[in-house]
Amino acid sequence: MKPTFTAFAKSPDEGHGLARDMRVRWALEEVGQEYDVQLVPWEEFRSPAHMARHPFGQIPTYREGDLVMFESGAIVLHIAQTHDGLLPAEPAARARAIMWMFAAVGTIEQPVIDMEVNEYFEADKAWGAERKQQVDARLRTRLADLSARLGEADWLDGGFSAGDLMMVEVLLRLEGQMVDEFPNLVAYCDRARARPAFKRAFAAQKAVFEAASAAG
Amino acid sequence: MKPTFTAFAKSPDEGHGLARDMRVRWALEEVGQEYDVQLVPWEEFRSPAHMARHPFGQIPTYREGDLVMFESGAIVLHIAQTHDGLLPAEPAARARAIMWMFAAVGTIEQPVIDMEVNEYFEADKAWGAERKQQVDARLRTRLADLSARLGEADWLDGGFSAGDLMMVEVLLRLEGQMVDEFPNLVAYCDRARARPAFKRAFAAQKAVFEAASAAG
Repeated sequence: MKPTFTAFAKSPDEGHGLARDMRVRWALEEVGQEYDVQLVPWEEFRSPAHMARHPFGQIPTYREGDLVMFESGAIVLHIAQTHDGLLPAEPAARARAIMWMFAAVGTIEQPVIDMEVNEYFEADKAWGAERKQQVDARLRTRLADLSARLGEADWLDGGFSAGDLMMVEVLLRLEGQMVDEFPNLVAYCDRARARPAFKRAFAAQKAVFEAASAAG
Repeated sequence: MKPTFTAFAKSPDEGHGLARDMRVRWALEEVGQEYDVQLVPWEEFRSPAHMARHPFGQIPTYREGDLVMFESGAIVLHIAQTHDGLLPAEPAARARAIMWMFAAVGTIEQPVIDMEVNEYFEADKAWGAERKQQVDARLRTRLADLSARLGEADWLDGGFSAGDLMMVEVLLRLEGQMVDEFPNLVAYCDRARARPAFKRAFAAQKAVFEAASAAG
């Protein structure tokens, strides 16, 4: 059954692939599952039709037959649990791969969002720079810990998994900011971006933005 | 195989049950799984021994035979996937219950942590109150959306699940702040706290704090 997910009709990141639908696209490309995309204009995010799909009025959402889901982490996990290729078969390794998915959205994405809030909404305040020091310090501690755990390994735990997919997606939101202090995290992200499935997903989301821009 | 999880040797919330080990305790109590607790003093959180268990130097961690995990959401999901009682059997309902676990730690806990940071680290700043307005507004929007989705239902999607367990645990961190604007969320939390498994878990974590206090 071909699933459909929702994405920005016109991505606010202008095709940089930072929106969370990219996680779903990439996961579907990794497992070789065809999909449809439903584009949602920003002004419809809080419409009754979209709120029925996503109670917090965001993207992505996912539909597969009667199953309707939101939360990119949950959608990627669902794809990983129903297709081969994103989770190891051995139970303990599988639990640890899922653990890294939670670490990505809980432990790492929280200070990343904090940095984005500071950048977008507080930079022009008198206290924006003072708070940025604290936000940066919290994020730097997390990235240093992640860098220490990754060490010289290619991926967080054995082969590439949905845990790496989610972690890389969260790190890419920083567009190099602070990540560039940790060469092994830069190499980790580059390794992920070199995957054919990532490249296909990235090109697909970029094409959506370019088509929307051409249409005005 | 009896699992062991780690918890604060002396809980900073003084037995109020706000630390994340409570999620693991509650899940284990719900499924009737016996467990051991290893108490970790605050000053050992970043010791090599604890960082090997938890790369970000936090609690809880979880050990079950050779499997070592961190991230409360991942640990609760592992418990739910290896025992009966916390996830529905029907695949679509099961995917939605896991979706609510991700919503708890991603969408709701993020602004909850933001409020905690503001309360603990920014309240004494000249700009603490101004930022609190923004932090509160973001959290209020999320809680209003959650309240609207819950409506008159007892639980988020059918029967009680690991999704409710995680969501209630995140809401309880607020200790009534702002949640009290949404009567159905207050009733939702009360319903969860009335569960025998919650009561056992809460009493157990409180006993740990009281024993630590008595020991000085």
